[in-house]
Parts: sequence; C-alpha cells; structure tokens
Amino acid sequence: MEKLKKYVSVKDEDQFYHQGAVELLVFNFLLILTILTIWLFKKHRFRFLHETGGAMLYGLVMGLIIQYAAKASDAESGTVYECEKLKSGQSTLFINITNQVYEYQYKREISHHNVNGHQGNAMLQKMTFDPSIFFNILLPPIIFHAGYSLKKRHFFRNLGSILTYAFLGTAISCIIIALIMYGFVKAMVHTGQLKEWDFHFTDCLFFGSLMSATDPVTVLAIFHELHVDIDLYTLLFGESVLNDAVAIVLTYSISIYSPKENPNTFDAAAFFQSVGNFLGIFAGSFAMGSSYAIVTALISFTLCEFPMLETGLFFLLSWSAFLSAEAAGLTGIVAVLFCGVTQAHYTYNNLSPDSKMRTKQLFEFMNFLAENVIFCYMGLALFTFQNHIFNPLFIFGAFVAVFVARACNIYPLTFLLNLGRKQKIARNFQHMMMFSGLRGAIAFALAIRDTESQPKQMMFTTALLIVLFTVWVFGGGTTPMLTWLQIRVGIDPDEDLKVEAASQSASNPDKNTTKAESAWLFRIWYSFDHKYLKPILTHAGPPLTTTLPEWCNPVARLLTSPSAYGDQLKDDDTDYIINNDELTENYESSAHMPVWDRTGSTQATGKEDIHEGDLGLGGYKLQLEHTAHQPQMN
Amino acid sequence: MEKLKKYVSVKDEDQFYHQGAVELLVFNFLLILTILTIWLFKKHRFRFLHETGGAMLYGLVMGLIIQYAAKASDAESGTVYECEKLKSGQSTLFINITNQVYEYQYKREISHHNVNGHQGNAMLQKMTFDPSIFFNILLPPIIFHAGYSLKKRHFFRNLGSILTYAFLGTAISCIIIALIMYGFVKAMVHTGQLKEWDFHFTDCLFFGSLMSATDPVTVLAIFHELHVDIDLYTLLFGESVLNDAVAIVLTYSISIYSPKENPNTFDAAAFFQSVGNFLGIFAGSFAMGSSYAIVTALISFTLCEFPMLETGLFFLLSWSAFLSAEAAGLTGIVAVLFCGVTQAHYTYNNLSPDSKMRTKQLFEFMNFLAENVIFCYMGLALFTFQNHIFNPLFIFGAFVAVFVARACNIYPLTFLLNLGRKQKIARNFQHMMMFSGLRGAIAFALAIRDTESQPKQMMFTTALLIVLFTVWVFGGGTTPMLTWLQIRVGIDPDEDLKVEAASQSASNPDKNTTKAESAWLFRIWYSFDHKYLKPILTHAGPPLTTTLPEWCNPVARLLTSPSAYGDQLKDDDTDYIINNDELTENYESSAHMPVWDRTGSTQATGKEDIHEGDLGLGGYKLQLEHTAHQPQMN
Repeated sequence: MEKLKKYVSVKDEDQFYHQGAVELLVFNFLLILTILTIWLFKKHRFRFLHETGGAMLYGLVMGLIIQYAAKASDAESGTVYECEKLKSGQSTLFINITNQVYEYQYKREISHHNVNGHQGNAMLQKMTFDPSIFFNILLPPIIFHAGYSLKKRHFFRNLGSILTYAFLGTAISCIIIALIMYGFVKAMVHTGQLKEWDFHFTDCLFFGSLMSATDPVTVLAIFHELHVDIDLYTLLFGESVLNDAVAIVLTYSISIYSPKENPNTFDAAAFFQSVGNFLGIFAGSFAMGSSYAIVTALISFTLCEFPMLETGLFFLLSWSAFLSAEAAGLTGIVAVLFCGVTQAHYTYNNLSPDSKMRTKQLFEFMNFLAENVIFCYMGLALFTFQNHIFNPLFIFGAFVAVFVARACNIYPLTFLLNLGRKQKIARNFQHMMMFSGLRGAIAFALAIRDTESQPKQMMFTTALLIVLFTVWVFGGGTTPMLTWLQIRVGIDPDEDLKVEAASQSASNPDKNTTKAESAWLFRIWYSFDHKYLKPILTHAGPPLTTTLPEWCNPVARLLTSPSAYGDQLKDDDTDYIINNDELTENYESSAHMPVWDRTGSTQATGKEDIHEGDLGLGGYKLQLEHTAHQPQMN
Repeated sequence: MEKLKKYVSVKDEDQFYHQGAVELLVFNFLLILTILTIWLFKKHRFRFLHETGGAMLYGLVMGLIIQYAAKASDAESGTVYECEKLKSGQSTLFINITNQVYEYQYKREISHHNVNGHQGNAMLQKMTFDPSIFFNILLPPIIFHAGYSLKKRHFFRNLGSILTYAFLGTAISCIIIALIMYGFVKAMVHTGQLKEWDFHFTDCLFFGSLMSATDPVTVLAIFHELHVDIDLYTLLFGESVLNDAVAIVLTYSISIYSPKENPNTFDAAAFFQSVGNFLGIFAGSFAMGSSYAIVTALISFTLCEFPMLETGLFFLLSWSAFLSAEAAGLTGIVAVLFCGVTQAHYTYNNLSPDSKMRTKQLFEFMNFLAENVIFCYMGLALFTFQNHIFNPLFIFGAFVAVFVARACNIYPLTFLLNLGRKQKIARNFQHMMMFSGLRGAIAFALAIRDTESQPKQMMFTTALLIVLFTVWVFGGGTTPMLTWLQIRVGIDPDEDLKVEAASQSASNPDKNTTKAESAWLFRIWYSFDHKYLKPILTHAGPPLTTTLPEWCNPVARLLTSPSAYGDQLKDDDTDYIINNDELTENYESSAHMPVWDRTGSTQATGKEDIHEGDLGLGGYKLQLEHTAHQPQMN
C-alpha cells in the first residue's frame, strides 16, 4: 500500500510539472505566431507594426481568451491559515499533514486586501511570472545586447549629448512627472477617490522614475531599416540605453529612501543618503561591469584558437558581471550594460573572427527572444493580472505627465546642448526625439516588481497602459512621422567617414582635433584609451613602444601583443567591421532597403568628428588609413 | 511605521535573491575554471582529461570546500509543523503569521527519515538544484544537439545495428544488472545490512534501467578529435543517443509498474501494461517530435529570407516538441531527440546558409554549457548532497553488474549482427565498444529524480560513483586503449565515399543495392523518403514530377518547390555540408590533428553501402554525382 501511495504521489508531481509545460507552450505558440506575422509584414513591407507590437497584440488576445475561458475553474484553494506556532521569515516550511511531511517554499508576502485576487483560477496564476524573472533572466540579455551593439564611433562622438539626456534628462523627467502626478493625486484626494495617507510624494517620485525609462525599440528598428541619419539614431539609442540604467538605479534609490519620521516630509539627511546611494550604486555597477569586461579582454588575448571556449568564456564572464553586481548589492542590469560596452570596445578586438560572429549572433538571438517574451507578457498582463486598479484620473494624469516631461527633457536640453555643439541638433530631429519617447520593457519590469500595495497596483496598471499606447501608436506612426518631419532616410552610415578621410588626408590632422565637438576631458580620455589601454587590452592599436616614453621600452615590449607591430590598421578595421556587421546583421536582407530612399541626397554631415586616427597617432597613420578606406569607396 | 516595515521586507526579499546570485556565481566560476583548464589541455594536447571530467573534478573540489567551510552555519530552520487544518496536495499555501499573510509554494513531499538531512545548512541547500531542472532545462539541449548532429549517412547505413544495440542491448543490460543486483541485495539482507521489504525486484529493475543509459561523451570527443574510423564512431554515437531514449522510457515504465497485490510477485497484467506503456510512450514521443520537425520543415520552406526569424522559429518549434510531449504525458527528451534527427534530415535542407550556421552554433553552444553544468554538478553532488547512503557491498555489486551487463550486451549482439552484416564489426571494435560503456548525465538525472526512499538514495550514491569512475578512468584511458587495440585513427570520413563514387561509376548501380547491409524494409523506407518526403518537405531531392506516376503530375507540380527542378544535386551536397561541418565545427582547429596519424593507411572500408544516388534515382543521377564529387577529390 505504501508503495502504491508513492506512485500516486509521483504521478501527482508529474501533473504539477505538466501544468508548467502547458503555460510555456502557450508562450511558445504566441511567439511562433508573432514570428510568422512579422515575417508576413516584413515580406510585404508593412512598417506600422513592429514585432514587439505584434507580440503584445497576440498576448492581449491570448489574455482575453484565458480570462474568459478559464473563468469557471477552481477557486477552491486560497484559504488563509492561521498558524501561531510559525515564525515569520522562513524560507522553507516543513508541514506535517496527516502524517506526511511536505516541503513548502517561501514565495512572497501578500497584503490582506490582495488575498482574494491571488486566489483566482489556477491557469491565471500559472501564467503569471515571478517578477524577478524579468530582472534576472529576461532583461540582462536585452541590455547586454544594447551595450554590445552600440555603434562605438558615433556613440563616442555624441557622448556629451547622450550623457546629458541620460542623466539630466532622466532626472528632469522624473521630477516633472512626480510633480504633475502629485497634483493629480491631490485632486483625487479632493474628490474622494483616494485616501491621503495612501500616496506620498515619494510614491510620485517612484512613479516618475520608473516612467522615465524610455525604450524606443520599435522606432530604432525602423530607423535601422530605413537607414535614418546615423547621428539621430545614435542620440536616441544612446539616450535610451543609458537612461534605462539611470532610471533603474534612480527607482531603486527612491524605493529605499526612508526618512526617519513622517514619510511625507522632506528629510535632508535621508535625501542626501538617497543621492549617495544613487551615485554609489551607479559607480559601483559601472566599475563591476567594466572590470569583468577587462578581465575577459585580458583572458581572450590568449585564447583565440578555440571559438567555442572563447564564446563560452565570454558569455560566462559577462553573466558573472551581472551576478557579482547583484551579489554585492549593486544593480546587475547596469553592470551588464557597461560590461557590454566595454566588451565591444576591447574584447571584441581580441576575438577570433568566428567568435566575433558567434557572440554577436548569440546575444542577438537572446535579445530577440527575451524582447518578444516581455512584450508578449505585457499584452497578456492586461487581462491576466489579478489586481489591476484602473483609475481614469490617474491614468489621464500620467499620460499628460509623461508627454510634458518628455518635452521638458528634450527641448530645453537640446537648446543648451546646441549652444555647445558645432553640429546643431536640427529642429526636426528634436521633434523626432520628442516623438520617440516610447515606454517599454524597463518601465514595465520596474512597475511589476512590487504590486502589493494599492498605489503600486494603480501605478502598474497605468504604466502598462502607457506602454501599450506608446508602442502601438508612436511605434506604428514612426514612418509617417519621418516623412512628415522630412527627415532624410537611406543614408550610408560610412559616408561621413569617407568625406572625413578625404578631407583629413588633405588638411592638417592637428587642426581637426580643435574642431571636435567633445570637451577636452573626453579627448584626454580618448587619447589615453587609444595610446595605452587598447594596446594593453587588445591586439589592436599602436604598439606601446611607440606611445610610451622611451625609458618605458622594456615594460612596453612586455605588454604589447606581438601582432600589434604588424597591423596597425586593425583597430580602424574592426571599427568598420562593427559598423558593417550592424548594417547587414539582424533579420532583414539588404534587398528590403526602400528603393525610393536610396537615392536620397548624399550631403556630408561629418564635419566635426573625433576620428580615431588623428588623436592617437598623428599624421603617419592617416596615410595608411586613407589607403585602407580605398576599397570601400570603390 | 507600516511604510518602514514594507521597506524592510523589500530588502529581505532582495537578500533572498542575492543568495541565488552567489550560488550561480559559484557555478559560473567553476565553468570558467573548467574552460581555462581545458584550453590549457587542448593547447598542450593532453587527452587524458576531457572537459566534462575537468568540470566534475572542479565540482568535487568546490563541493568539498563548501561542505567544510559552511559546516557551522544555521541549522535553525527545519522544524516540522503540525497543521491539522491544512488539506494535503495544495500547490499554494497562504499562511497568516502575526497578522501578515505569506504565500508559500509547494515543493515536494519528504519522508520522515529525511527531514534532518533536508535541514542542513543554507548554502548546501541552495546549491542543490531542483531535480526537474535536469529534465526540463539541462538535458533537452544536449539531447537535441545529439540528434541534430547525427551523421545521417553513416547513421542510416548502420541503422540496423544501432537499433539492435539500443533496444535489445538496453533491455539485456537492464535485466542483467537487475538480476545481479537482486543477488547482491539478497546477500545484503542475509548479512543484515538491509531489511527485505525495502528492496523489491522492481527496484532492481529500476536501477538496471537507469544504469543502462550510456553516455560516452568523453570517448566520442576523442574519437572525433583523432578521426577514428567513422563506422565505429557512428555505432557508438548512435547507440548512446538512442539508448538514452530507451533507458528513459524504460525507467519511467518500470517506475509506474504497479502490480495490484504484493509488489514482490510477478503480475502478468501489470507487466504487460508496463510493456504497453513503454511502447506507447516511445511511439508517442517519436511521433510528437518528428511531427513538430515536419511542421518546421514545411514552414521554413517559405521563410528563408530572414535568418533571425528562421532561427527563432526553429528554436521555438523544437522546444514546443519537448513541451507538447511533456504536456501530453509522454517523454519530452525522447520527443526532442527525434525532433532533432528529423530537423537535421528535412528542415536543415530548407534553411538559409546563415540559419544553418546559426542553428548549429546555437545548439552546439547550449550543449556545451549544459553538459559542463551537469558534470560540474555531479562532482559537487558527491559532497553537497545530504542523503548519501554509501553501502560498499551494493556499490561493489553495481560495478560488477554494470561491467557484466555491458559485456552481455556488446559481445553476443555483435556476434548475431555479424552473422547478417557484410562488413563485420571487428574484434578490436567490439573491445572498444565494451570499453566505451561510460555512464553520464542521463543516468545521473534519472537517479536524482527521486531520492526520497532509502533504496533510491543508495541507488543515487552508487550511480554517482559509477559515473565519476567511468568518466575519469575510462574517459582518460581512451587514447591508450585506442593504441593498445590498434584501432586506426586519422581517417578521412569521406574516403570510403570517394572509393564508392569511383566504383559506382564503373559498376552497375543496381547491383549495389543488393549488396547493401540493411534490410529490405529499410531500403523501401529510404526510397520512399527520397522520392516523396524529401521533395515535399524540402527544397532538395528530385522534383516530384519525376518520381510520382504521370497521372499525379498536377498535384506533383503543386507540391514541388520551384528550386527543386534546377539543382537536383542539392540533396547530396547538403549531405556533404553536414559531414564537413561536423569535422570543422567544435572547438578544435584542424591544426591539432595528430600528424603521426595522418599518414595512417588509407585502405578503403566502404564496400557495402546504400548510397543516396543509387536508390532514388538510378543511373542518370550517378553521373552528375560523380562530377559533384570531383572538386572534393582534388
């Protein structure tokens, strides 16, 4: 008999597992549907629905189906048991029920008013991910991929502007949203929709910071496909990538802001502690991510014979950057972002050609899957999430706040930046940036992290609606908007480079550096990087023996890779490789470039530019470079 | 105050998560160490330690460290609570502790005598995976990769022998191990080491079936590297791949064998039900896996412009095969294996060159990671698993049983096969196959699935020791063994093909088919596949208009891909591509092929062979084929 019981319980357990299989299967089918739809759209060149929008749509429909089909199922479980003997905070619970010990694992704490919501039907419960999955599994590959595929040259050229938008812009956006929302909350309290003690100014700030994470993935995909001006692309991409990092750390800092007394009053000490937290976490995550990347660069220096081992090491070390940051109490996502940037800058040069492709394709694939899963889940969550609080006034307020904040971010900052920039950001570019303030995966992931209290549930519902609206409406409207704003498309991203190369070989290279947009601080860093870091960390760059003073020669010889002497062109070549990769990669063939745009004007825009060659090596290299460009021009 | 408490609990939760990060970090570091070690070994061409052996070694050392370093930590939790009010079998538990509701999730049932073992220290507990992770996450990519990288041509040529070893051999092995173990168990009962009712004959059979899953990954890697005779390679590889499937289904069938009365007596009805279960599950999983692959083939037919979408679809559909099988109560692993085989056979031909490479590299990478994680975990488990039961007599018996069973599997079956085979399996090949009976990931995963009862714990401990021993000793001894048995290495796998091609162009192709090793049943299938399935499912093969009777022409034209008319050589070409891929893929450069072996004798072995050309298309194609081979010969 005991035996029999055992077998029954084994079958029960299998039953448990098969349930998980069904839910994963639902997701798989949604993704497959999405892929097929996108394929159809791509084939017929419909650009009004990006794959993420499609994934969201299918998720929505599936959520609706589940919601209504599974309504009448079990609401049996969900009784709350009183156990005074138990201590709180145990991670594992052994419970003896009718002489059989069961192990239960801690999942989370639930507010009393949510218990009913959590009961629901089993299918809905199963379709709900643990929010930590977003932060620990789905977001890291997306963010790493973003960092790894930053177009280095254009990114560094616009670094000043990007940093301004990312740091200052996010802070502005956060505060503006918070202020506007606080006004609406006051109005809601006034009309009796909300009890005052429910919603503090810190909650508004929290909402402001999570809504400040822009995610124009749809817009960028279309930019990429249509070959929109590379500087506009870089500004938007760079802003969105860095601004995610800022928004995540900001949200975290605000959530641990804990004034000693009344949480509603301003506490200077707690405030400065939050600022300190922000700076500390940001700098720490940055350091963690980039140091792992540097370790990878140093190891891969010697490991380039076995592509599989190389790729494995690359993957594991990048993942370790994430995990170490998390383990150290920092922000893994931010660490992984800077790890990606640094990997692309140094390690990529050391990889064998095979590994270069493998790593790119691997992270591209992971990014593709993770992105579609998240967007699919967002659609699903609208109907399957149990504790939505739809408050029309709050939602209306949030929409207003988000758009006002975006405007207060882009236009004033661009005005200030244009004072300093040689190559001004044109008015139509500004409008396009304003338009591209989509909200996406990060905002959603930050909002779903905590949905226990009623304010948080209201925020989550609102954030979800804003994501859905911006992705569909703004994402779908990108192509018409480009036409309407008369933004040039079909631009060869290397075109300005060619003009540069031609002009540089004619003019004095030293004059060029004075024209550079970026500040002297950045130029010093760039020169340092090119002269010392690149030669030490990669196969590329000039040999250290030429860049270090003569008395350092013995050390320099030791640190320089033998291959650095031979091919001093490599560094620039790899720059090209990254650019070209990014044009031909992804799931679009060049045949789909719109013909009506290819003939667009070819006016050169690359007037101010820090070019690798003219900083590090001076004149002697330019000649070589010019030769290297030759085949591309023909 | 309530606010403050909230923040504290948020921090607590973070604490929970950071623990997970530390454990993953430990695994990451172990894998990184393994990769670096293997790189060193490969560079210096040490072949006595394969990466899986290395991973296991590091896991072992790390387990030792954790075991002794973390000994004095908390043993606080682990009290068993009595709650009469609770009903058993709830998946989620809401518990009210001091006015706060906590959600707990069901994990598993625990036997009373194991509760102490489960308490242990927190680090050890955290380092223990949920056994279902093996079956749902780690094994599927390994098994799929095995199926996807089967060398089709050589596999089909030896299909009869492989099937015999896989089905008959595994059954023999299972029964022999069970009988010997039953003897040992009786002896243990006699000496008082075991109470009789603890260990039934079905338990012995269970142990026999799980120990019958061979996993010569180490041996195969060395074979691959040294270019050992391709038929020996294929026999071993094919046997180990299919035998995993058989062993898994067999173990499952035995575990649900439930005689109505005394479990110790033979119950004919229950026995036949088990046999029925085995056949049903096996056939069902096969059908599920291959039908998903066929769907993929049909879809990818039209989808070859966008490599990323193609790869995504390929991945998702293959995974769906696994999930659907699990959801339907079949065996996902078996489904995924046959899905892999079918994908390689049909879908692979439809993929764009870019996707071919992407899918291969993706699954290769996943296989690499998953394999090393499993082996690493096996090393770790020796010290961190809490409920080991080391019974020397049982362990000794198991070693004896495993070797006797392997001998009873290989030698008699080979004798029988050699009666039918034109190309005999030589004596030294037989010894090598006997020697290659390593146990690995599957045996371990099957054993760890259920470690609640004491007999199961004893089995788990014993299985783990056998895996460690065989991987290190036999894995490490492969190269000396090859030399000692005088097995030729450094063979060009296409060499026999060339000889064939040359001989076929001279001789009458019809005569060739009569020489074929395989049975008429298989030949009919092959011909059917080549004439009808391949043209319908892939771009390759002859157009249906030539293979179908004339009155079917309208249908045939509809079903045939337009590209099939042009390049009737494609099918054979892709055959080559797979072969060549597999030689140049992986993490070894051809420069590492041992020079002392390259000059080995080049005596041709390919006398009996079903060649694609001579079955499907007769003479007209052979001429073309011969031309196609030409460039490879020069």
